[in-house]
Amino acid sequence: MATVRTPPPLDWDGRTLRILDQTLLPTHERVIELTGAADTAEAIKRLAVRGAPLIGVAAAYGLAMEVARTPTIAALERGAAVLAGARPTARNLGWAVERVTAAALAGDELAAAAREAAEAIQRDDEAASAALARHGADALECVLPPGPVTVMTHCNSGALAASGRGTGLGVIAALAERREVHVLACEARPLLQGARLTVWELNRLGIDHALLVDAAAPGLLRSGAAHAVVTGLDRVAANGDVANKVGTYGLALAAHAAGIPFVAAGPSSSIDLRLPSGDGIEIEERDAGEVRAAGGALVTVAGTACRNPAFDVTPAELVWALVTEHGAASPVTADTVARVAA
Amino acid sequence: MATVRTPPPLDWDGRTLRILDQTLLPTHERVIELTGAADTAEAIKRLAVRGAPLIGVAAAYGLAMEVARTPTIAALERGAAVLAGARPTARNLGWAVERVTAAALAGDELAAAAREAAEAIQRDDEAASAALARHGADALECVLPPGPVTVMTHCNSGALAASGRGTGLGVIAALAERREVHVLACEARPLLQGARLTVWELNRLGIDHALLVDAAAPGLLRSGAAHAVVTGLDRVAANGDVANKVGTYGLALAAHAAGIPFVAAGPSSSIDLRLPSGDGIEIEERDAGEVRAAGGALVTVAGTACRNPAFDVTPAELVWALVTEHGAASPVTADTVARVAA
Repeated sequence: MATVRTPPPLDWDGRTLRILDQTLLPTHERVIELTGAADTAEAIKRLAVRGAPLIGVAAAYGLAMEVARTPTIAALERGAAVLAGARPTARNLGWAVERVTAAALAGDELAAAAREAAEAIQRDDEAASAALARHGADALECVLPPGPVTVMTHCNSGALAASGRGTGLGVIAALAERREVHVLACEARPLLQGARLTVWELNRLGIDHALLVDAAAPGLLRSGAAHAVVTGLDRVAANGDVANKVGTYGLALAAHAAGIPFVAAGPSSSIDLRLPSGDGIEIEERDAGEVRAAGGALVTVAGTACRNPAFDVTPAELVWALVTEHGAASPVTADTVARVAA
Repeated sequence: MATVRTPPPLDWDGRTLRILDQTLLPTHERVIELTGAADTAEAIKRLAVRGAPLIGVAAAYGLAMEVARTPTIAALERGAAVLAGARPTARNLGWAVERVTAAALAGDELAAAAREAAEAIQRDDEAASAALARHGADALECVLPPGPVTVMTHCNSGALAASGRGTGLGVIAALAERREVHVLACEARPLLQGARLTVWELNRLGIDHALLVDAAAPGLLRSGAAHAVVTGLDRVAANGDVANKVGTYGLALAAHAAGIPFVAAGPSSSIDLRLPSGDGIEIEERDAGEVRAAGGALVTVAGTACRNPAFDVTPAELVWALVTEHGAASPVTADTVARVAA
């Protein structure tokens, strides 16, 4: 198996943050420089940097850069509000902003404390990715048949979505180090992160794969085309309901009907124990223009009204295992969620 | 409600068949002329004419034109083979070709008998569309709450997919004559017949609607966004399993989980009583290029392998009602299917 590493999705030199503009992949690998809260929030909004864990890391650095420039509590609070409001669904964004804010306020020097907190968030996220990949692969090994397996995934939850090698795709990469793995990658309309990013990563990782439209996934699962479905996650409620990229719920329903495991993997910073269930998770509704266009071209009648939720909620009972850096919760209940959240 | 009629998807003048090239909608309304079996089969393959009932009608005329040009049994049989092999999944194609062939062989004059059989197929299909729209709307009226309702549909099953005003979309149009209806239209990647064709038809029909990506449908159904899901169908097995546009199975799973009715509607010519179950339905796998491109642009790494099934199978137990011109089968069992097939 080839092991060409993907270019880093973000690069911190202690003062400025450089990110790979993911909106241009796989065609162009353009790195852009961010300098504070406003441009980092804008990069998060337009998905130049994306993936629940990675937007947490990026927001932490955005806030650290903001207070390095203007080391006042007012600037810290303004920057925190701008960043936390960039996108609503992923838990990691608010969590990272709160953690940097608290550390800055508790530290001797605002800017230094914020920077150290942001760097710790990235280090922790990288360690979490490595640990959860192992736990996820271990859990799957217990139920997969011997020999080569096919795993379906959705959107992108790899090295472009988190520190290290990612969450859902990190689990799959860990499994691919132990046995032959073929990946079925759902494209993830409207913005095609599966087609653009996951395929790009799988090529670099040397993992065999095929791409499909999202609508094809349930029928392929019913026909026995995959042994498991593994995704990332954006926010988990205390009862184990999982918000993730829109389309995940349909995959979970089809996996359940096919009698194969559905695994959702992410760092514990995605778990929101304040929410009793997924009903309380705010689902971001993005611009209609994303649906009206595909590949940059208008594909419907101009001005057509659209629904464009960016996420959906999968109820805990359809999740075979919820995996964090602390282990795999399976079955997924309030008790097991609390265990992997801690 | 406005009632601007869509241009006819096909127009037969007794000698040649003109079709609206559906690959160019909604941008261009170009009519092309077909003259025999080969060019009609080619138009069916490339989806210039599509929709299970409509490809049956087009194939019937293609065969009639072929034997008008070369009135021999050899030409009839060659033409029948070319047309029947154009696409595998929809039952109507093979059924129409068999019906024209049998009529031609039984008639006094090959060409006249073939033409009359093709014209009868179109007349029957138009009558079936009108009747099944009424039956479908009647069935839904029994279970929908009073007042305005939202109905989700997939791909295109309207006037561009069948004679008259269509199958699934015909049911929805009939319902919209009785009460206020809002339609949620799934785009139907890869070829976007929902975005391109259904939205175009709904605009002309004056029915309020919103477009969504296929992946968003299950989550929206879970959140209570629709009161019913109504689609067309391509082939129905004797036990009621339904093959339809890829993505239908995911909608049926989500409708079932949400406790709302899933209705599949089509003429009885789509029912294949020779097949005991959906497991025997051949699912067309189309070119990978359809998945790699969106809106005419490459959206993934060049040369990426793809899975591209054009259809999936929904098991009978997820279909609340199967509707044909003979009535609504609900629940869907071998007995009720036999009743609406006759």
